[in-house]
Amino acid sequence: MIDAIGYAAKHSFSRLKPLIFQREPAGPGELEIEILYCGVCHSDIHQVKNEWSNTVYPCVPGHEITGRVTRAGAGATKFKVGDLVGVGCMIDSCRSCASCQEGNEQYCEGPNSFLATYNGPMLPAAQATTGANMYGRDNTYGGYSDVIVVREEFVVRIPDGLDPAAAAPIQCAGVTTFSPMKHWGVKAGDKVGVIGLGGLGHMAVKLARALGAEVTAFTTSADKEGAAVALGAAHVELEKDAKAQMEKMAATGGRFDFILSTVPEKHDLNPFMVLLKRDATLVVVGALEPLAPVNNQQVAFHRRSVAGSLIGSIAEQQEVLDFCAKHRIAPDIEIIPIQEVNAAMKKVEAGDVRFRYVIDMTSLKEDREAV
Amino acid sequence: MIDAIGYAAKHSFSRLKPLIFQREPAGPGELEIEILYCGVCHSDIHQVKNEWSNTVYPCVPGHEITGRVTRAGAGATKFKVGDLVGVGCMIDSCRSCASCQEGNEQYCEGPNSFLATYNGPMLPAAQATTGANMYGRDNTYGGYSDVIVVREEFVVRIPDGLDPAAAAPIQCAGVTTFSPMKHWGVKAGDKVGVIGLGGLGHMAVKLARALGAEVTAFTTSADKEGAAVALGAAHVELEKDAKAQMEKMAATGGRFDFILSTVPEKHDLNPFMVLLKRDATLVVVGALEPLAPVNNQQVAFHRRSVAGSLIGSIAEQQEVLDFCAKHRIAPDIEIIPIQEVNAAMKKVEAGDVRFRYVIDMTSLKEDREAV
Repeated sequence: MIDAIGYAAKHSFSRLKPLIFQREPAGPGELEIEILYCGVCHSDIHQVKNEWSNTVYPCVPGHEITGRVTRAGAGATKFKVGDLVGVGCMIDSCRSCASCQEGNEQYCEGPNSFLATYNGPMLPAAQATTGANMYGRDNTYGGYSDVIVVREEFVVRIPDGLDPAAAAPIQCAGVTTFSPMKHWGVKAGDKVGVIGLGGLGHMAVKLARALGAEVTAFTTSADKEGAAVALGAAHVELEKDAKAQMEKMAATGGRFDFILSTVPEKHDLNPFMVLLKRDATLVVVGALEPLAPVNNQQVAFHRRSVAGSLIGSIAEQQEVLDFCAKHRIAPDIEIIPIQEVNAAMKKVEAGDVRFRYVIDMTSLKEDREAV
Repeated sequence: MIDAIGYAAKHSFSRLKPLIFQREPAGPGELEIEILYCGVCHSDIHQVKNEWSNTVYPCVPGHEITGRVTRAGAGATKFKVGDLVGVGCMIDSCRSCASCQEGNEQYCEGPNSFLATYNGPMLPAAQATTGANMYGRDNTYGGYSDVIVVREEFVVRIPDGLDPAAAAPIQCAGVTTFSPMKHWGVKAGDKVGVIGLGGLGHMAVKLARALGAEVTAFTTSADKEGAAVALGAAHVELEKDAKAQMEKMAATGGRFDFILSTVPEKHDLNPFMVLLKRDATLVVVGALEPLAPVNNQQVAFHRRSVAGSLIGSIAEQQEVLDFCAKHRIAPDIEIIPIQEVNAAMKKVEAGDVRFRYVIDMTSLKEDREAV
């Protein structure tokens, strides 16, 4: 067994503290990866605080991982020792259902859904309809740690020219916003709205811009207006002005082809629904919870849709990394030592980060020596 | 001017009573139509009771009309005197916006939207962004009357072989359920769910069946189970059993390609969202109001969508009439004299109709003579 060290929450109101835990060494087809960087995603906070009512403790969060391959298990040929690699929100899936066969592992329909990088299996054995626990484990531990072991199919390549630290958040914040833009066909010349300018939102602006769209950023923070323009937004609208914006757009007919809500909690979608063109879709990727009531009068009158989307596939995770390298875009990050993660999480909750904290995992050595 | 007689509500809590009112005679491109039959749609009740907060009184409802052409205005060549014709929810639109040009008049983006058959213009001049009142009138009067005048482009042909009385509800209940099934591509072999078994729902079952789908009807009324099977449903599920149904389906993977909610009021969509396949859509056509909160965890995890759809285009109104004639299907109707319309509306509200009341408009003569 591998003695790993990570930062864990022991219960829903605990701070993250150092924890020594065991990982199985790399088996056939698996890779052992030294973790170099891990992003701090809002989901980490939801999970630590048990806000989805499914957290298994101790909880070691982290699913935006950049690392280096240190050992390849038998038959693992996709990477070699020393390669710079990434791990996102999934480390395995059933690999046999229709979604997995089609390369949509994030929608795995196996008895336990995909295996989440932390707090997996996604669907606990007790809730699986067949009662099966196909992954043979009750919990997984994420990237706030020094080492992880992952099946090679769920490991991606960090392309040359991408800063390894900045590459980390692309694997959740990036792919989560990139995947729906690809699925709903965002293309050059489209008018795209992005609601919320946090970790996901700021990447959505950059990615939509790089896809050739004209981007409008909607934010409640007046102090993010300048930043939004710097990110590539052609227009910035304060959400309090949404009604004025709506009237202006209705008058000019300048409606949106696609709107993405990246706000990590319930918020009123109605002021944005009216901004969609006929047959256009507003996709919610931020809030995995009951949405505020949507007025179907606004939806039906222009045959609009409200949809949800979950992260992206492994192929899309690779695609968005390559896309970022090619277009020379990357998240705006602030690197912190892991000892500052609790303070950083408080700032994320307050929306007080520009725009993603990334933990430098070499800082764990200090805790390792203290143990 | 034409002295018309109809049944009108004078305020939001009045019964419908006879009213003599004036219609303009057929102008260029218009048809004067003697109304033979008119269906009683749940929307008529919403409008009479001002439940959408936009009713102009007096209100003469009715937008499921079968009639006979009695006079053609100058240049009106689409029909000739004596032709059996239909009028649905629209009698005009701006005819110049993108939606109108593409033949989607129901999504007219003109300053007053399409011109509704009653209580039009759809968007009152006061609410139109440009302030324009392009139709030059403040209210329209619907099909609970003996005569109507309509532009010929908004009049459809009642095909041979279709009972004229049964044809009436096809023009709202039929096209409203047919249009989204066509738009979202319902095809032979698809599993289709229909929520609610009223005027719209019972037509949705028949139409989906005729399209070759395997239909499951969801109803809260145990006494509609037999009727649902007679309509063509392969399965009937009582809504109280939706959770059991959900578990059964999840176990077998037998999920739906498309679900249509025809319930004319807010209801919980979450038990149905989990029944959709990945990338599938639940379309709400019944409730033009704020929907109950939808849990995005269920939506995002399979990239599902909730959408709305509004009636259908004029071309689709003709298409569904022809489709019904070809497949020998029609609404199950109960014909009433107009003097019974207030009692009938109460029964519609109670869900106590199998499945659509149609008013025989010859009964208006009695009121005409009494005036």
